[in-house]
Amino acid sequence: MSSSTALGLQQVIFDTDPGIDDAMALYLLARHPAIRLRAVTTVFGNASVATTTRNAQLLCRLYGLQIPVAAGAAMPLLASREPEFPAHVHGEDGLGGQAQADGGLPAPDPRPAHELICEMVNAQPGAITLIAVGPMTNLARALRHDPGIVDKVRQVIVMGGAFGMNGHFGNVTPVAEANIISDPEAADQVFTARWPLVIVGLDVTQQVVMDERYLAALQGRGGQVGDFIWRATRHYQDFYSERDGIAGVYAHDASAIAYAIEPGAFTLRAGPVRVVCEGLARGQTIQDFKDMGHHARTAWSDQPVQQACIGVHAERVLALFDQAFDL
Amino acid sequence: MSSSTALGLQQVIFDTDPGIDDAMALYLLARHPAIRLRAVTTVFGNASVATTTRNAQLLCRLYGLQIPVAAGAAMPLLASREPEFPAHVHGEDGLGGQAQADGGLPAPDPRPAHELICEMVNAQPGAITLIAVGPMTNLARALRHDPGIVDKVRQVIVMGGAFGMNGHFGNVTPVAEANIISDPEAADQVFTARWPLVIVGLDVTQQVVMDERYLAALQGRGGQVGDFIWRATRHYQDFYSERDGIAGVYAHDASAIAYAIEPGAFTLRAGPVRVVCEGLARGQTIQDFKDMGHHARTAWSDQPVQQACIGVHAERVLALFDQAFDL
Repeated sequence: MSSSTALGLQQVIFDTDPGIDDAMALYLLARHPAIRLRAVTTVFGNASVATTTRNAQLLCRLYGLQIPVAAGAAMPLLASREPEFPAHVHGEDGLGGQAQADGGLPAPDPRPAHELICEMVNAQPGAITLIAVGPMTNLARALRHDPGIVDKVRQVIVMGGAFGMNGHFGNVTPVAEANIISDPEAADQVFTARWPLVIVGLDVTQQVVMDERYLAALQGRGGQVGDFIWRATRHYQDFYSERDGIAGVYAHDASAIAYAIEPGAFTLRAGPVRVVCEGLARGQTIQDFKDMGHHARTAWSDQPVQQACIGVHAERVLALFDQAFDL
Repeated sequence: MSSSTALGLQQVIFDTDPGIDDAMALYLLARHPAIRLRAVTTVFGNASVATTTRNAQLLCRLYGLQIPVAAGAAMPLLASREPEFPAHVHGEDGLGGQAQADGGLPAPDPRPAHELICEMVNAQPGAITLIAVGPMTNLARALRHDPGIVDKVRQVIVMGGAFGMNGHFGNVTPVAEANIISDPEAADQVFTARWPLVIVGLDVTQQVVMDERYLAALQGRGGQVGDFIWRATRHYQDFYSERDGIAGVYAHDASAIAYAIEPGAFTLRAGPVRVVCEGLARGQTIQDFKDMGHHARTAWSDQPVQQACIGVHAERVLALFDQAFDL
C-alpha cells in the first residue's frame, strides 16, 4: 500500500468536459482534504474540447488550483469530425454563460491528455485514482497507448451509463446516457479493461437532486465560488425543470467525486459491463449481474467483473458538497 | 360494440408453444366463463412446432376443448433452419415428460396458423382477442398476409419481453427474454403495428410465483388436470429453483390470460415499444415511456403507443388460476 493510501489521501486525475456539474465536481475535488488533485484532463462532451479546456483552466484559477490541465480528445474514437454539443443544457460557453475569459490564461500542459494519464500512473504505481465524468475517449486512448496502466491505477471511477435501477434509464435515448452514447466504443473498451472500475450512473446521480433552495444557499460562500455556481446553474436548472420537472439539478459528476471520498454512501452491484455499440440500443450499458455468461456463452462471458452503483444515500452526497464551502 | 363484448365475453385465439406454463394458461382460457376460446395456433419455441402442435392437441383433449388447432411457424422469420429448443426447461416432450400420446389425435386444422388468424379476425371485426405467448412469428406472418387485421382485432396481448421494472431484465441474456429473442424481427413488427397491444413481460410474470405448496394443492382437482399440472411442473420447478432460487415456477403465460380476464390487476405504462435486432442487446424490448422521441428524432418517433405491464397484484392472478379448478 502506498503512503498516500495509508494516509487516507487519494491522488486523483480528473478527466472532465466542463460543463456545469463538472464545475461543481471539480470544486469538491479541490477542497476536500481526502483528495489530492494532481491534474485535470479535458475531453469534448458538454462542449468542444477547446471550450472545455478553457473552462477547466478558468475553474482551476477560480478554485486556486495550480496543477496541469491537459487537453484531450476532440471527438469520439471512430469519428472524423466534431459532434454536436448540448448548448441547450450547458450553454454556448459550457458554463451557463459564466465563463468570462479575460485572456490571461496560461497555455495548457503540452502533453495530450492520454499521455499525461499514462505518465502519472506509471510514475506512482498503485497511487492514482482516475475519475472520468465525460465521454471515455481519453481513457480508451490511454489504454491503447499503454495497456500496462490497468495494473497500476488505484481505481477508475466513471460517471456515465444507466442500468434501469430506481426507474432511471437513458437521458439521450430511452436506454442511453449522454457520456456513454458520446463514444460507446471507448466506453466498452474502458469497462472491459482489467482494472478496478466503479460506474456511477443515472441510477444514482438522478437520485441526488440539488434543489433551488440548496443552490441558493451556496451564494456568498466559498469566496466567489458559491455565487458562480448559483449563476451558472440558472439555465441548467431551467432545462431540468422543464424536462424532468425536478425544480433543481442532478449532481451527476459530483456524485462520482462523492464515491471517491465516501464509498459507503453507495450500494454496489458486481458483474461484467458491456456497452451496446450497434443499432437501437447504441450507448446502453448492460451489466450481467446474474452471471448468465457463466452458464451460456454471451458477450459478457470472461469479461472482468466491475461495480455499478445501484443505490445512494443522496443526503450524504448533498451534505458532502455543501460542506466543501466551509472547509 | 359486438354482442360478445356487451356480454363481457371475450373471444380468443391463443397462439402458443406448449410448454408447461402454456398448458396452465390454456386451462385458464378453457375454464373461465369470461372467455370463449375459438382456436389454438402453435409456434416453435419451448419445443419444435411438431411437438407444440401435438401438445396443443393433447391439452385440448385433456381439457375437453373441441376447437381448431392450427400449426404455425417452425422457425423465426429470418431463419432457414430450426433453432435449438430449451429441453432443459420444458423437457424433451415440452410438457415435463407428461405428454403421453396414444396415437389417437386428429389431424390439425388444414390452414397455417397465420391464415386461420386472419380468417377469424376478418369474419368478426372487433371481436377477436389475440393472445400470443410464444415467439411472435405467427402474428408477424398474419400482419404480412393481411395488414388490414390491425383495425379488426379487439386487442393483442403478448407474453414476452422485459423492461427492467421490479428488477426484472432478461432471462436468456442480461436484457433479452426468451420469446422475444426467439424472433426479434417478428416481435418488432408486432409491437410497431397499429393495433391495440399490451405486453405482459417478465416485469410482472416473475412477480407471479406459484410455489410448491400452491402447485401441490392442485392435485386431485379439475378431473385429471390438477394431477397433470403437478407432475408436469416437477422438472420445471427444479429448473427455476436451481437458477433463480424461487422454490416454485413463474406463471409467465397464465399472467397474459389473467390480463385478458382481469386487467385491473395490472399497472400499465404507455409508450412506443421497439425490439433490438442487432448486436449485444438483440432481443431486448425498449419502451420510450418518456416520449423522448417527440423532442428528438429516434427509432421510437411516430411509432404507435402500446402498453407495457409494469406492476401486478400477484395474489389476484394466483387466485384466478386456482379458482379455474373449481369452475
